[in-house]
Amino acid sequence: MSEKLIELAKRRGIFWPSYEIYGGVAGLYDIGPIGVRIKNKIIELWRRYFIYDNSEFVVEIETPMITPYKVLEASGHVENFTDPIVECTKCHKIYRADHLIEELAKINVEGLSPSELDRIIREKGLKCPACGGELGEVRLFNLLFTTNIGPYTGNQGFLRPETAQGMFTSFKRVFEAFRQKLPLGIAQVGRVARNEISPRQGLIRMREFTIMEVEFFFDPESNVNPPLEKFGNMKLNILRGEDKLKNEKPKEYSIEELLKEKIVLNPWMLYWMATAAKFVTALGMKSYYFEEKLPHERAHYSKQTFDQIVVIGDEKVEISGHAYRTDYDLSRHMKYSGQDMTVFKKYDKPKTIKRKIVVINKDSLNKEDKEFVKNFMSFISSKKPEEIEEFINANEKVNGKNISNYVKILEKEEKVNGEKIIPHVVEPSFGVERCLYLTLLNAYKEKEGRIVLSLPKYLAPYDVAVFPLLEKEELINKAKEVYNLVRERFDTIFDDSGSIGKRYARADEIGVPYSITIDPQTLVDNSVTIRDRDTWQQIRVNINDIVSVLERLFKGEEFNKVGKVINNENE
Amino acid sequence: MSEKLIELAKRRGIFWPSYEIYGGVAGLYDIGPIGVRIKNKIIELWRRYFIYDNSEFVVEIETPMITPYKVLEASGHVENFTDPIVECTKCHKIYRADHLIEELAKINVEGLSPSELDRIIREKGLKCPACGGELGEVRLFNLLFTTNIGPYTGNQGFLRPETAQGMFTSFKRVFEAFRQKLPLGIAQVGRVARNEISPRQGLIRMREFTIMEVEFFFDPESNVNPPLEKFGNMKLNILRGEDKLKNEKPKEYSIEELLKEKIVLNPWMLYWMATAAKFVTALGMKSYYFEEKLPHERAHYSKQTFDQIVVIGDEKVEISGHAYRTDYDLSRHMKYSGQDMTVFKKYDKPKTIKRKIVVINKDSLNKEDKEFVKNFMSFISSKKPEEIEEFINANEKVNGKNISNYVKILEKEEKVNGEKIIPHVVEPSFGVERCLYLTLLNAYKEKEGRIVLSLPKYLAPYDVAVFPLLEKEELINKAKEVYNLVRERFDTIFDDSGSIGKRYARADEIGVPYSITIDPQTLVDNSVTIRDRDTWQQIRVNINDIVSVLERLFKGEEFNKVGKVINNENE
Repeated sequence: MSEKLIELAKRRGIFWPSYEIYGGVAGLYDIGPIGVRIKNKIIELWRRYFIYDNSEFVVEIETPMITPYKVLEASGHVENFTDPIVECTKCHKIYRADHLIEELAKINVEGLSPSELDRIIREKGLKCPACGGELGEVRLFNLLFTTNIGPYTGNQGFLRPETAQGMFTSFKRVFEAFRQKLPLGIAQVGRVARNEISPRQGLIRMREFTIMEVEFFFDPESNVNPPLEKFGNMKLNILRGEDKLKNEKPKEYSIEELLKEKIVLNPWMLYWMATAAKFVTALGMKSYYFEEKLPHERAHYSKQTFDQIVVIGDEKVEISGHAYRTDYDLSRHMKYSGQDMTVFKKYDKPKTIKRKIVVINKDSLNKEDKEFVKNFMSFISSKKPEEIEEFINANEKVNGKNISNYVKILEKEEKVNGEKIIPHVVEPSFGVERCLYLTLLNAYKEKEGRIVLSLPKYLAPYDVAVFPLLEKEELINKAKEVYNLVRERFDTIFDDSGSIGKRYARADEIGVPYSITIDPQTLVDNSVTIRDRDTWQQIRVNINDIVSVLERLFKGEEFNKVGKVINNENE
Repeated sequence: MSEKLIELAKRRGIFWPSYEIYGGVAGLYDIGPIGVRIKNKIIELWRRYFIYDNSEFVVEIETPMITPYKVLEASGHVENFTDPIVECTKCHKIYRADHLIEELAKINVEGLSPSELDRIIREKGLKCPACGGELGEVRLFNLLFTTNIGPYTGNQGFLRPETAQGMFTSFKRVFEAFRQKLPLGIAQVGRVARNEISPRQGLIRMREFTIMEVEFFFDPESNVNPPLEKFGNMKLNILRGEDKLKNEKPKEYSIEELLKEKIVLNPWMLYWMATAAKFVTALGMKSYYFEEKLPHERAHYSKQTFDQIVVIGDEKVEISGHAYRTDYDLSRHMKYSGQDMTVFKKYDKPKTIKRKIVVINKDSLNKEDKEFVKNFMSFISSKKPEEIEEFINANEKVNGKNISNYVKILEKEEKVNGEKIIPHVVEPSFGVERCLYLTLLNAYKEKEGRIVLSLPKYLAPYDVAVFPLLEKEELINKAKEVYNLVRERFDTIFDDSGSIGKRYARADEIGVPYSITIDPQTLVDNSVTIRDRDTWQQIRVNINDIVSVLERLFKGEEFNKVGKVINNENE
């Protein structure tokens, strides 16, 4: 099925390999005129679910792809964003080591270390599939695209592999400008680049693609709970890590269970997983589940990760990732930049806390010699009150003298209004091109030997197609009139070339939900036919009613409720 | 004014330098929550003028930033996309040579060669402004960001400096999938990167930014004319190259004059310049002109270039560029890729052409010896008919023999249906962040010591703000009701913190056109006030009428026509 889709995509301008005239570059794809329309609608749909419907606490920003070294050093990507590779010592072809082993030895080695992979290659006696040569040692290859910023050499930078670091480095700016309170979600839709070893899966594994993600900052101790009630009785299919190890299948859980049994570690993560479920359903997907990643399968920054897996026929594809990044990123940036990344958490009412303080008995101290005073003061100033208290209790001495005569530790009550905290983060993250590919794959149908792209109506590249039945000037003029009327309100395409059957077929192939045909009868009674993409049924409607009929259809009314179904008279 | 705008932009989350916590990177900016909303509306507005309103012949695609070496070699960027730099021999600071000379010697040196710039530096005795050291030799620095694609070293690639090459390399694919006829516009909105030497002009000169451009492919011999009539009596301000040399000011021309007098070299270029004029007017700009670039100021691919210059106060900034790229790019890619980039131009009716053909007299030839036949045939097969004819007419000989006995050149009539042509291209190109910056600068006003961002209503980050007058639960609840009612139809923001005066000021600062306030009277008679951002006038409206009143206001009706203006009772 996917080969047929790829053929359709090339032929109809949905997507194709970039730079084809130069032989193409693996992992780079152009999105064509029809593809851009669908892709932009998918992005807008995501914005609706993740941003607009949460506009009280989520905002969108845009940060650059070019990222200085320091930022990705702090984030851990310079150290950890690697894949294992292995090079043939004979033909020097380079393979991704884990994929090669999985392909040749049929075993799952996700997350194993280079030395473990190396051991397996030796044990199984694996050779280069291209030339049969000996494979070299497995080593790590960093997937960051590197570049140099500015005219000075040595000023290394990268292309970002995720948009997330843009949200972390600008967190304080957004926090100050927007709400000055938690929770705060910062969303971004933007390009990222990953220098994959040998990408071969079309839109699924690309070297440059568009990501849609939210970094959602919250106080893990807060009693502000996410509005989970908006998901009603929704159930989620979850494959827990422990069940995965036992080769079990995903199980269905209610939101309540997932929360109560701590299957999902925090309620905000659950909130975004449920939102992701709704979004993926809106893309048209019928079957998906969330797979918990095992500790060695998780990214370095994550305490818990779920991949959302979409199932279409035999294909299982990750459509989104949900990571609990904790305070890892903000803490690291605080350390590497030396800037304060905390926010002040104001208590509902001031808290009274007890604090130990040091009180020195000056009168006694003044009676002692200078040498002792100097040593005593240097001792006191280097210790915390708790440490001094312990020292006194243990009866230890400074210059042979018991210090309890010179110093006392008292406890004092203090009122505090709040404290500085480093927010925690959960991150729902989607690849747009994966969404596009899966949406297309899911919509791809064949009917009587013809292709029909049964996209959800709101994701179709055009809402309506307008055709004159015959190449007669009268009909063409009337059809243009109708086209101009309809395009005021709907994305509309006009097509007057080839037979009407071919034009219906062309509209079906790119998923246009409704086709309007102007025929000789139109000139008699001002009526046109509207044809439904999926059933190929037609109704006859007066031109004056077209816009309102289409509005009803797009609101979800059934085809045979808005008009009388007639035979496919023109097909 | 621009400093005040930059301060506002940081404080209110419009834009700020990227990676500030690490000291920032020159030429990289984050677009904040308010900025993204305005930016996205600018992009949609551009799409309306350049794509949607021309949907019969313009489509949008998306291609990657990462570009293989060969593509930018073919395009001429590897060779020509350079700026002159000069390094201080003492402190090793690097300057852009032309800018340094312009700054220190106050002379315009745009487009001069490195050796000419070098000569000026020596003649004027210019030194390093930072340390007074001797300046080294001026050399060219390539502004392409370089990277390596894949795990093999030496597979160099670049970040694209313009989206255009994506449209050229995929031209045939789009041509086949879309109309299969000219003219065809391929538009793209996407990120590009230019490794500027020392960018210091905020959003005006960035190292990574978003471009909106159309590569418009047409047949320069075609009699299909652009629909220039849609611009009516529009006049354009043009500063011609010859007038620039004479230090003259831009002059006003009608579309007709520009076309007739060939001031703009082709009608499609004029069509897009007029479209650009309409778009820039829609951004709110009052003053702009098109400046023709002199030959040495133009990019290497351009036969004629106009920059569209916006004037705001003392600032003159290029907002768009219009280049007549001819068949340069497609011809180069044809040469470098070896692929056919031509399109078949079908004639309206078949043309009769005359073609010379070679007819050999076999009978005479068979009488000659083998040696002569061999030489004669090898001579014939290496020449064009025209060359052979010339040879005969000049009475020249093969092996001492006059060849007119053995060969005749005849003229034959042939019918042809069309020919292969390489389309020509004009390119209108806008930087989105420049549009954003200029739109903000143009909208920036101060009124009674307060900032008002008088954005065109359709570019405002929010349409409406909703405020409860006081922090009373009843008013807050009612305000939320109104908020939920209005946000169904308009981009709406809710704000209940601080005094009402502060909230009005906050809404004015980010350009929200209308603020709705719920006050004690609302609870009595269900009416609210609507306040106008620019005049600070208020009207009182029943909640049931709010949506329709707002709709009338957004359609352009005057404030005092939709309700009775009252005093600023709440301010």
